[in-house]
Amino acid sequence: MLDNPFYSQEQHGPYQFYDLGDFDLEEGSTIPDCQVAYATFGELNTTKDNAIIFPHMFSGTSKHMEMYVGEGMALDPTRYFILLPNMIGAGLSTSPHNSPNSIAMANFPNVTIGDDIRAQHRLATEKFGITSVQLVLGWSMGAQQAFEWAVRYPDLVKRVAPIGGTAKGTAHNHILVENAMRQIRSDSAWENGNYKQPNAVSEGLKNLARYFSMIGLSKEFYAQETWRAAGFNSLEEFETNFWEAWFTPMDPNALLASLRKWQQADVSKHTDGDLASAMGRIKALVYNMPFEKDLMFTVDECKFEHQLTPNSEMRPIPTLWGHFGMLGVAAEDKDFIDNTLKELLSQVA
Amino acid sequence: MLDNPFYSQEQHGPYQFYDLGDFDLEEGSTIPDCQVAYATFGELNTTKDNAIIFPHMFSGTSKHMEMYVGEGMALDPTRYFILLPNMIGAGLSTSPHNSPNSIAMANFPNVTIGDDIRAQHRLATEKFGITSVQLVLGWSMGAQQAFEWAVRYPDLVKRVAPIGGTAKGTAHNHILVENAMRQIRSDSAWENGNYKQPNAVSEGLKNLARYFSMIGLSKEFYAQETWRAAGFNSLEEFETNFWEAWFTPMDPNALLASLRKWQQADVSKHTDGDLASAMGRIKALVYNMPFEKDLMFTVDECKFEHQLTPNSEMRPIPTLWGHFGMLGVAAEDKDFIDNTLKELLSQVA
Repeated sequence: MLDNPFYSQEQHGPYQFYDLGDFDLEEGSTIPDCQVAYATFGELNTTKDNAIIFPHMFSGTSKHMEMYVGEGMALDPTRYFILLPNMIGAGLSTSPHNSPNSIAMANFPNVTIGDDIRAQHRLATEKFGITSVQLVLGWSMGAQQAFEWAVRYPDLVKRVAPIGGTAKGTAHNHILVENAMRQIRSDSAWENGNYKQPNAVSEGLKNLARYFSMIGLSKEFYAQETWRAAGFNSLEEFETNFWEAWFTPMDPNALLASLRKWQQADVSKHTDGDLASAMGRIKALVYNMPFEKDLMFTVDECKFEHQLTPNSEMRPIPTLWGHFGMLGVAAEDKDFIDNTLKELLSQVA
Repeated sequence: MLDNPFYSQEQHGPYQFYDLGDFDLEEGSTIPDCQVAYATFGELNTTKDNAIIFPHMFSGTSKHMEMYVGEGMALDPTRYFILLPNMIGAGLSTSPHNSPNSIAMANFPNVTIGDDIRAQHRLATEKFGITSVQLVLGWSMGAQQAFEWAVRYPDLVKRVAPIGGTAKGTAHNHILVENAMRQIRSDSAWENGNYKQPNAVSEGLKNLARYFSMIGLSKEFYAQETWRAAGFNSLEEFETNFWEAWFTPMDPNALLASLRKWQQADVSKHTDGDLASAMGRIKALVYNMPFEKDLMFTVDECKFEHQLTPNSEMRPIPTLWGHFGMLGVAAEDKDFIDNTLKELLSQVA
């Protein structure tokens, strides 16, 4: 264990835990006494069929998703029971920094998106008795999880909104994520995952931050100095106070565990590598929502999977913020996403 | 000095040197006894107006440009005098690894694209007495140099072919290059530029290689496994035997000097930051040749400058190889470029 104050109720709460007991992982290890952290909004109805599930993105927690929950919004807690689960290994749930020595730090086992969705399914059905899910949505790694829900439990999920993410990483995305991992690992203080202080790898995390600055936003964002509208006075201030401030408090092993999970995400594991067959299992209505000008998950990459999905519509999000349009720094981005989700929820599915 | 066997006549020759004497740099330092390495093909005619100048790209030398020179090709040495100059600081010319201690290694002064073009102009006019340049062409940093030639010496240059590069780096390109520099500097063996062996920074150079693999080729290149057509049997083999093999023999300080030069390239230094005014100085006919699907210098970024250029045509190069279409690994890419240059040379200018 290497306690990290960033992953706290003060910063990310309130959240609760569901105890999975000993949880067997797809790649062979077992996490003893595996805890899934989650937050909820609203109430389950008596038929337990008004649930919305909203997993989080890379480097995020359930807390970052709360901005899309509110009365009058698509994710309205007066109508829906909204469940925000935290990925295993990502910081709040059982993770490298808060685990017993056998699975702490560099010993943390490989966790897959499939593991997370099995864990979330147990949380949804065992703990809450949910009988139908009106919508699974998610951004980036959240989109990977949303697709996995739809492929793995096609009869449970009525609607899916993958936002800026794919069901299977492309070959280029694999390399893109490999480079992100290298930003952390190239810091000599990383020591193969056994760094001595939570913040020892700060140079590596700053490199990761700068890397995301390069690949996470659009070229037009920088050409038009869109960061000014977000309140920054110089590019360097944006790099430091936005990107570096985002990543430097985080746990490097949690980020690496998540990156590996991101890189391996692939619903075609269910169908011997046949992606078309896996996508064909989806019964939900899908609104596929890439960000225009996103360099990480392009509109074309998302469109490729859209074409393999039985009941799918393309709804690209017009924003200069690229992959980070979901942060809603520009109010119109948040409004566009919320309105599109409202429309999706109004569709019979 | 830290002798590096990579930068040798055996690997990059034959080349000659032109001695500039003490060469004052735009940013204030002086390089004593500055040597510009160059190669030539063909003969100057009696009026000395049949010259073509072809500077090289980042991480390259004059040797890499020779594949575009040959009888029957656009750059035909039976018709033209073809001059291939080497950038200062890039390896063959006076550079961090081959300089006296006062400017060796981390002490090497900042050199700009403007410095290079002044040096190349002296080589062309003092050494050879060139009176007119039929074409300046270049790829990537070579395109930066070609634009600088056209803006700085508008009466000397008749035609310009910037291939996959811009006259002024965009804000996003600035960040993209900053990330490339960080790949080298994050290696603890770099020691602020005073590494102990030429190959000490191999991990940093491998990170640089992987970074270029991510940003230098197109997403479609990887989706379609185009590397197979280049003779590689797996993605990892391509990463190792193509990308890592490319960068690891090189000198880290030479690469960093070049990256800084790349990042600062800006013809609007001539016009108090007014890019339109700088581009307006160009009298040459320009064929602006971005690579389709290039993530480093996009077609849109090149088109923006094309629109500021008085006499310019857009000639995008159709290739899946992205920024590295110039290597001509696919024969049709090389043919397309050669044919487009032939057409440009046939235009009255």
